[in-house]
Amino acid sequence: MPEVIAPPTRAPREPRNGVNTPVLLATINAVKETPALAKFRFRASSRWLDGTYSESRVESFSGAGGEHNHQTQFRYAADHPAVLVGQDRGPTPIEFLLHALAMCITAGIGNIAAARGVTLTSVESNVEGDIDLQGILGLSDTVRNGYERIRISFTIAGDAPPEKLREIVEQSRARSAVFDVLTNGVPVDVSINTR
Amino acid sequence: MPEVIAPPTRAPREPRNGVNTPVLLATINAVKETPALAKFRFRASSRWLDGTYSESRVESFSGAGGEHNHQTQFRYAADHPAVLVGQDRGPTPIEFLLHALAMCITAGIGNIAAARGVTLTSVESNVEGDIDLQGILGLSDTVRNGYERIRISFTIAGDAPPEKLREIVEQSRARSAVFDVLTNGVPVDVSINTR
Repeated sequence: MPEVIAPPTRAPREPRNGVNTPVLLATINAVKETPALAKFRFRASSRWLDGTYSESRVESFSGAGGEHNHQTQFRYAADHPAVLVGQDRGPTPIEFLLHALAMCITAGIGNIAAARGVTLTSVESNVEGDIDLQGILGLSDTVRNGYERIRISFTIAGDAPPEKLREIVEQSRARSAVFDVLTNGVPVDVSINTR
Repeated sequence: MPEVIAPPTRAPREPRNGVNTPVLLATINAVKETPALAKFRFRASSRWLDGTYSESRVESFSGAGGEHNHQTQFRYAADHPAVLVGQDRGPTPIEFLLHALAMCITAGIGNIAAARGVTLTSVESNVEGDIDLQGILGLSDTVRNGYERIRISFTIAGDAPPEKLREIVEQSRARSAVFDVLTNGVPVDVSINTR
């Protein structure tokens, strides 16, 4: 009965938290074997509608060696509120940065918890950013244009001790694409065509 | 007839491009008089739904000395696509960064063109970001988690010479809150509560 004396092995992870954990782990292994699969290019197309009101379409991306269409053509508007002389037909563009940050860390929490065998019952977050509009209004050369600071607060519950739940959030933050971009910055090339 | 011999003055700007230019300029002057009005705090509340699927609500913000509710409670989902083991019920979180960038610079183009007396006929943009997922998948300590580079390309048309149209885009980039955050980064504080 060699099974009996075999040292304890890590149990294979089952689907959990709505995450297909075996497929997730197989995907990670596939990328480990073939790192070129990890190269992705995301994109959006945008058009100005009126005033400060514009709209983006998010439809397709490339990665894992091929081209992919989203199942839906996602469309999002943005505008300025009345107090900033817009018509509030969408959030301001910078509010989407807060949304993106919360979504990225939260998605990672779902995956990491599943990989660690933790069943989550809830993950909520509140995120806020402080900005002094003297920058974008051109009234100051010392006030920056963007947020001065962002704060995000998570409340997490699941079938693990508080310390393990904290570690899951911390690991997700440590591997978050949006957290990295927001805290470290990224080169942005701007090109302009006229017609 | 002193009007006849008065030196030419800059004509007052009229509403243009859907921008209430007089109110915009009055707002800038009001903030110049009372810089505390420029302090804004934007926020979002998010909750995990399932797997990599989550949702944010964008409802209110403070600024201009008060608290404001958006006219609509904006809600946005995010998810991972099938190739990243999600169910594609929303874009990935990092795609929202591309949307935010395009929206911010485009809104500024609308305002700046109005302030400069230029009538726009179209502003379109394509934005893309390159990312190597070896970072977020935990397969490399040298590959960053976020985008390696973002490119945004604008095509603008209006009743001004190409050079003036280019200057409008360039000025908008120079005063864009999202461009600043993405290129320069911002401190992000993360706090964790368990229950």
